[in-house]
Amino acid sequence: MTIPLAERMSRLGTETAFAVSLEAAEWAAKGHKVYPFHLGDINILTPRSVMDGAIQAMEGGKTGYCPTAGIPELREALAENIGRSHKMKLSATNVAIQPGGKPSIAKFLLGTMDPGAKVLYPNPGFPIYESQIEFHGGVGVPYGFVEGDEGFELDMDAIRKGLAGGAKLLIYNNYHNPTGASSPKAEMEELARLCVENNVYVLSDEAYFDVRYDVEPTSIAGLPGMAERTCILYTFSKKFAMTGWRCGAMIGPPDFIKLVANMNVNDESCTNHFVQYGALAGLRASDEEPQKILATLKERRDALVPALNAIPGIKCYRPDTTFYLFPNVTGALERKGFKDTDELRKAALRETGLSFCTRVHFGRRLPTETQHYIRLAYSGINVDQIHEAMDLFAAFLK
Amino acid sequence: MTIPLAERMSRLGTETAFAVSLEAAEWAAKGHKVYPFHLGDINILTPRSVMDGAIQAMEGGKTGYCPTAGIPELREALAENIGRSHKMKLSATNVAIQPGGKPSIAKFLLGTMDPGAKVLYPNPGFPIYESQIEFHGGVGVPYGFVEGDEGFELDMDAIRKGLAGGAKLLIYNNYHNPTGASSPKAEMEELARLCVENNVYVLSDEAYFDVRYDVEPTSIAGLPGMAERTCILYTFSKKFAMTGWRCGAMIGPPDFIKLVANMNVNDESCTNHFVQYGALAGLRASDEEPQKILATLKERRDALVPALNAIPGIKCYRPDTTFYLFPNVTGALERKGFKDTDELRKAALRETGLSFCTRVHFGRRLPTETQHYIRLAYSGINVDQIHEAMDLFAAFLK
Repeated sequence: MTIPLAERMSRLGTETAFAVSLEAAEWAAKGHKVYPFHLGDINILTPRSVMDGAIQAMEGGKTGYCPTAGIPELREALAENIGRSHKMKLSATNVAIQPGGKPSIAKFLLGTMDPGAKVLYPNPGFPIYESQIEFHGGVGVPYGFVEGDEGFELDMDAIRKGLAGGAKLLIYNNYHNPTGASSPKAEMEELARLCVENNVYVLSDEAYFDVRYDVEPTSIAGLPGMAERTCILYTFSKKFAMTGWRCGAMIGPPDFIKLVANMNVNDESCTNHFVQYGALAGLRASDEEPQKILATLKERRDALVPALNAIPGIKCYRPDTTFYLFPNVTGALERKGFKDTDELRKAALRETGLSFCTRVHFGRRLPTETQHYIRLAYSGINVDQIHEAMDLFAAFLK
Repeated sequence: MTIPLAERMSRLGTETAFAVSLEAAEWAAKGHKVYPFHLGDINILTPRSVMDGAIQAMEGGKTGYCPTAGIPELREALAENIGRSHKMKLSATNVAIQPGGKPSIAKFLLGTMDPGAKVLYPNPGFPIYESQIEFHGGVGVPYGFVEGDEGFELDMDAIRKGLAGGAKLLIYNNYHNPTGASSPKAEMEELARLCVENNVYVLSDEAYFDVRYDVEPTSIAGLPGMAERTCILYTFSKKFAMTGWRCGAMIGPPDFIKLVANMNVNDESCTNHFVQYGALAGLRASDEEPQKILATLKERRDALVPALNAIPGIKCYRPDTTFYLFPNVTGALERKGFKDTDELRKAALRETGLSFCTRVHFGRRLPTETQHYIRLAYSGINVDQIHEAMDLFAAFLK
């Protein structure tokens, strides 16, 4: 290294999914066709209403700094919107706009986690939780999922064990990446009860809150005793196909949000001014465009799930949320003699052009795990390509 | 507090200038006229070329994620641009795009500063240096400025003392906020020599690099032995009147920049995708629009400096860079019987509507200081308003 590094840099993780993207891009650059199932990006254009809102604001001079917690109109509109879906009483003071969903992870941890503090987090899960916990000196306590008859359930035993071990912070990602799991009512209530009982504070990562097919929205923040101990990670990325716009929010108790706004002052001053008017226009427009995006995603899911289940040795639930599938490929792995999912992944790319992530891109395997999984994102691939890809995948695994 | 805070939160500073903004806004809301000299925001519209570049990219679908270090074209263009002005050999691998200039402060410190490490930083200076050093567990070692015959000079004795005390990190803000100071050649060379000799690593905050009137650009990064030990904080904010767009970059040795890009993955994924095309269009356009912005700012400076010097008890240099003035008001303070600059500031707002910051908004006064200063920003106020304001200020201080 040219510049000597701080010790914490040895503890910085990453999204290894980007390495998969790179491999896919390199394969494509060699002239091969690639079916992109690896990234949770959305190949759908941002709604016109959002674009118009942003362009109008830009040309109208909203090109200077804005308040560090966000423009008041957007904070109010988001408080109103989330208050309704979460059955919570919220105002602008509960909202600090962020340049994306992700900044809320570091800011929640920096705000609450002392060095050595234990933090429960989902594994498999979004890899940035673990990375940021360890980077800022905390101790990650992973909890997994149990594959039940109708999908994935939280491993409540692991959570109870973590709480008994002294964890006072918990990251919860209902509408879960990578499994697509959503907590049934009883499960979420039990988790909330445990948090209140053990005086635990929660980051509720709700990045996929609006990517639901036929599921009533529920948030742990709206359950009894939870509003004052929960921060919500909100993002405009998925609902409005705005991943590259970088606009989101942290929503939580006003006294904590005030300090988050001061972290904004320190980290990035504010989120892009006119982009916030775009997001505002999206919230104010009818739900027609987000519903269209959702319908497109649902069609893809319904093409993909049966095609996967038709392949011997693959078992895949049909999640009601997110745009991810987490099929169990243990049988296929054994039948084809692959030693692990990474070997399967690489062979699949080479032989069929299918590019996807696997369980290991979402955290280190837990000692209790016996099954093997891959993750397919269907946010960036059209139905006709899904059919084509699944035919190739089935032939490859025959 | 609803949510128990991590200990580091007690060490988080802020920009107290925002409190001044708030006071000004409250005063204005009561129906009073306010002359805004307090904030470094720019009341000039972003060039059309930049807007068109961004809009075209947005409508063309650049609304999804982009590479975490930025779009390759912008990294290349910026490397070329900075390579030329800094007389350095740079490529895209030296550049990590950021959502503004500010993120480079935290990322440089997180990347290099272990808890307890000493960091030299300018005081008076941008208050986020001190805040982020202390927030992330470092020890800030302030160095001041000496008021010479032709402007402010670095207090090299304080720097030498800090180096002797073991500081291995230094923040240098040539084209300096709040004094407007720029290092003469000899001063910068002496500083570089000290850094090389003492094996010191530097964050060169060049937020105002392009706000220069008749001054040849020089950067410490371009001096012998410095390229491999310096990270540059770059921003599009000032040159292109893009403060609210939030687009900047860290420029440094490729191996360090690679890790900064991984901090981007963790913190915010990437900077807004289409905004980067706007910035790119700005870099590729002729210099006509930035030159117009500069001419406007210069006209304001040339209205403001003589008006200030015409007031008894005020002495103000005419800096060749930035859009700040840092007049010495010690005489006026004594003559009018104000006990400190804060009393002067409040009275001036109340009596004349002039709103400005003072020395204390840029760090704690050093024990060696005997003089008193205020800071006037002229980026957000037109010449006719400057004349009007100065007439009122002169009358007030008569």
